[in-house]
Amino acid sequence: MDQINVFAPATVANVGCGFDVMGFAIESIGDEISIKKTGKPGLKITEITGCEGLPTDPEKNVATIAIQALLDSLNNKIDYGFELKLSKNVMAGSGLGSSASSSAAAVLGVNELIGKPYSKKELVQFAMEGERAASGLPHADNVAPSLLGGFTLVRSYNPLDIIELDYPKELYVSIVHPQIEVKTSDSKKILKREITLKDAITQWGNVGGLVSGLAKGDYGLIGRSLEDVIAEPVRSMLIPLFHEAKESALNEGALGCSISGSGPSIFALSKYKNTAKNIGEAFKNVYHSNEIEANVYVSNINPIGAEIIK
Amino acid sequence: MDQINVFAPATVANVGCGFDVMGFAIESIGDEISIKKTGKPGLKITEITGCEGLPTDPEKNVATIAIQALLDSLNNKIDYGFELKLSKNVMAGSGLGSSASSSAAAVLGVNELIGKPYSKKELVQFAMEGERAASGLPHADNVAPSLLGGFTLVRSYNPLDIIELDYPKELYVSIVHPQIEVKTSDSKKILKREITLKDAITQWGNVGGLVSGLAKGDYGLIGRSLEDVIAEPVRSMLIPLFHEAKESALNEGALGCSISGSGPSIFALSKYKNTAKNIGEAFKNVYHSNEIEANVYVSNINPIGAEIIK
Repeated sequence: MDQINVFAPATVANVGCGFDVMGFAIESIGDEISIKKTGKPGLKITEITGCEGLPTDPEKNVATIAIQALLDSLNNKIDYGFELKLSKNVMAGSGLGSSASSSAAAVLGVNELIGKPYSKKELVQFAMEGERAASGLPHADNVAPSLLGGFTLVRSYNPLDIIELDYPKELYVSIVHPQIEVKTSDSKKILKREITLKDAITQWGNVGGLVSGLAKGDYGLIGRSLEDVIAEPVRSMLIPLFHEAKESALNEGALGCSISGSGPSIFALSKYKNTAKNIGEAFKNVYHSNEIEANVYVSNINPIGAEIIK
Repeated sequence: MDQINVFAPATVANVGCGFDVMGFAIESIGDEISIKKTGKPGLKITEITGCEGLPTDPEKNVATIAIQALLDSLNNKIDYGFELKLSKNVMAGSGLGSSASSSAAAVLGVNELIGKPYSKKELVQFAMEGERAASGLPHADNVAPSLLGGFTLVRSYNPLDIIELDYPKELYVSIVHPQIEVKTSDSKKILKREITLKDAITQWGNVGGLVSGLAKGDYGLIGRSLEDVIAEPVRSMLIPLFHEAKESALNEGALGCSISGSGPSIFALSKYKNTAKNIGEAFKNVYHSNEIEANVYVSNINPIGAEIIK
């Protein structure tokens, strides 16, 4: 096999209380990468569509940085190179794991072309190098669900320990991406480096509740646990109409609603697909009636993650 | 029915990473209370055995304080009183939920004698008033598992939300109670009121991992998650030979080992009963070879919690 097309889904990181550790994959949007073997070692990006301003320099693009980390781990045993065409559907700066989708798709594709030396879970460490290039920190809370699908927990970074969480099949997500820019760096800066033990206890009570609710399929518990006392109270200030959007989702019957990643996208979880659709409409109304452009997505949880297509 | 005997088990709170929110019940030790209806309203403690220095004044003993909270909730509809005999097996100051066992047994017994107006879960709020009297704070992380059995999570205090966690049937605990005094107040004071966001993230990653590991019956994950970066590093300084005891448990094959409640008791979890027994022996050796008296308990997780006996 000399050529391959890969899809890796957009993701929602943090999931309310699970700041920096939890994430899940979305079904309806993601990035596609077409990867072709070339005769000589070396990486090249020949095309990027769907998103302006991303670097085609292989030393600067997260996809090729992630691939290089994978190749480095094999001590240059691979005596050929790769050419990539990126088709981006996850907007950079959306809070939906744009760089993670590209990194995840890239390492899955190259891993396949070189004879699958790694499992999907093992590929997380290489995709994380794309995240390091994008944000300065090798986060796994987007790349893990983008590769593995479903809900994931980064139990530990040192050593890296990614847990695939059980969750109920009937679970839907509504997402609104208001077309405003929130820089991840601003969104990081606004967080305090020290928090009260009291708030931390509230947060880990909710993390326990969310993981238990997902495992039991206890929708009420999932909803009650989707509460973030650490990041949401400060980051929501950077997102216009956040509280109106959240209230509209809860009014439509959302289990819970919070910021996706570092924003500005907002997600809500629902037990029923119809509820999720209604929430999508409600999200749209909040932003459109205030003259702010906003894209809305309604989707299942993606159970598969990154995959070879066609 | 005019007279009843109740048993409520000792408990391990915190469970490593689950500081202030998690707890589980032990099978082999607990408090017994004999409760008798009397003609006139009022509470009386006629006997306390097994533990010296506990108050018999009904306004000062946690058992009668918890009962009074229950009776108050019924607006004095009960026109008779109760006499209690307490038989304590859980030592006060052991870190095994001594006050919680008494409070849990007391409210379960009276609830039964007055026609069961409350479920076990609803009784938690009254038993918490015993905890308020004992430590100044109405904690639920011992009373919840003592009443309900198994592993519990206090997801939230306001509103109170107690979750009964799924866990594998094959799971054993070894406990050592070195006979030294650690005051809960000292053990509280030593904790910082502010923690770094980084440590908090580590802790809630582990809480998520522990809840998931218990639900899946993934023993490796349970073990890796039994890591406490908040309380254990400071509280262990108050417990002589803590690190030696922990090391001996891990050497015998414990899944993990940490402080029970605020100490000085130490607990270890194991997949096999034989491992748990060996850990009990190892615990004993560590303390006895250093001339420190220590009681050792080896037990299943108690799946039932407080119960009527005889």
